[in-house]
Amino acid sequence: MKPSNSRPIGVFDSGVGGLTVLKAIRARLPREALVYLGDTARLPYGTKSPASVLSYALQAARHLQQRDIKALVIACNTASAVALDALAAELAPLPVLGVVEPGAQAAVTATPAGRHLVLATEATVRLGAYRHAIAALDPAAAVCELACELMVALAEEGWTHGAIADAVVRRYLADGQAMAAHFAPQSVILGCTHFPLLRARVRAAVGDDVAIVDSAGTTAAALETMLVSANLLAPADGEGSLHLLATDGARRFARVGGAFLGSALAADDIELIDL
Amino acid sequence: MKPSNSRPIGVFDSGVGGLTVLKAIRARLPREALVYLGDTARLPYGTKSPASVLSYALQAARHLQQRDIKALVIACNTASAVALDALAAELAPLPVLGVVEPGAQAAVTATPAGRHLVLATEATVRLGAYRHAIAALDPAAAVCELACELMVALAEEGWTHGAIADAVVRRYLADGQAMAAHFAPQSVILGCTHFPLLRARVRAAVGDDVAIVDSAGTTAAALETMLVSANLLAPADGEGSLHLLATDGARRFARVGGAFLGSALAADDIELIDL
Repeated sequence: MKPSNSRPIGVFDSGVGGLTVLKAIRARLPREALVYLGDTARLPYGTKSPASVLSYALQAARHLQQRDIKALVIACNTASAVALDALAAELAPLPVLGVVEPGAQAAVTATPAGRHLVLATEATVRLGAYRHAIAALDPAAAVCELACELMVALAEEGWTHGAIADAVVRRYLADGQAMAAHFAPQSVILGCTHFPLLRARVRAAVGDDVAIVDSAGTTAAALETMLVSANLLAPADGEGSLHLLATDGARRFARVGGAFLGSALAADDIELIDL
Repeated sequence: MKPSNSRPIGVFDSGVGGLTVLKAIRARLPREALVYLGDTARLPYGTKSPASVLSYALQAARHLQQRDIKALVIACNTASAVALDALAAELAPLPVLGVVEPGAQAAVTATPAGRHLVLATEATVRLGAYRHAIAALDPAAAVCELACELMVALAEEGWTHGAIADAVVRRYLADGQAMAAHFAPQSVILGCTHFPLLRARVRAAVGDDVAIVDSAGTTAAALETMLVSANLLAPADGEGSLHLLATDGARRFARVGGAFLGSALAADDIELIDL
């Protein structure tokens, strides 16, 4: 049996979006063995009901548990919003980390007592996930949440530059302004792991005076803290590794996922599994 | 037991897109009892692998079979492209109809020996479904097929009018031109049941000299022919009815589906089922 700290970290997402989080984890913790599972057969989660998302997330977590992981990261905002508490209870004593609280932490650090505009999926918005997480960290903060499904599709299609992406992002931000007149956000939270690919479009729309935050960096930092406190950091001679799993469509996973991970992938790099 | 011809017709789609087909069926066959099943828990099908789409379609068909249907319409281009033959074999002697062949029929009728541009999902394009169906009907025709995933998302989001929808449609059509230089289509086939909602945008982009066809009307006509030949038309005093089933998200189904059906729906109108 492997020593505890040499076991892999499981990272779970509805598809390829969580690779933006995986990229940050690899950069911060290069000695860790990582197993990434994208539930591509059932994406997107953002328009599904909480009951369905919870059931999918439990299946994925149990699969990763069978691969002897030492910690689980839910690298999907929707699944974090719906299922973090249930997964933590189900998998205890395995440490489980979501991305909503780290994202909220990044926002309140960037602009204390600030006005935060959250761009997210329908499910994340309906649950008020960021509203609750920010209120717990910074009671003086104000939060406005906006569902932006078309931004998911833009990122999946690779249309992250140019006039159409600009127009879509500007329309959502205008809708947000109309919803909350004179809200004038001081921070925009990219509350879906697809949205970091559209960061430049959001920056162009909101100007330079607004902070733009996502969960990737703070999730990697929170994971490091969690591993240190549980004495589970990889040994100093750990070489790091990455194993990719998907529930459907290895070719599409490779093509779309490369953009999220920031390095090219081939279909042969991905192991197909059933959940 | 009900007389054979009073039994309902099953209509199956990955979500709400097939309601454009259902609408045409109701208009043409107002005395029929209709049961519509939208597999909203697993939509979209267009980016999934053929093996997954086939397995989902079989589950949906078996569920409808338990409801004693007299015929099945696969009101989803992707599922028709992947699963029509397998479903017809599995359910025999139940009559099974897809939407690809009726759509191809509409196109070759509109422009015999024509140049057809097919707008469809990734899966439908990868299988060359329309290319094969048109070649069988009209060997002199030329076909160019184009995957347009973002048009699915636009229809789901309800952004079917205005500058963004125009720009997305024009960009795909420009991509199509670049793929097949000087192809100059004489007909554009809306090869996904979501796309009739964007018909006006396609018309604006291609001008008045190009035919725009979809499967809805010809599928309803083919269904009528099939029912007549099997002596299964509803009795003359049939009052017609509609029962809606979905695998997830009744509220979202009602909100998005109303636009496809062309009449308002409430969440209470939809029965949630597990497959």
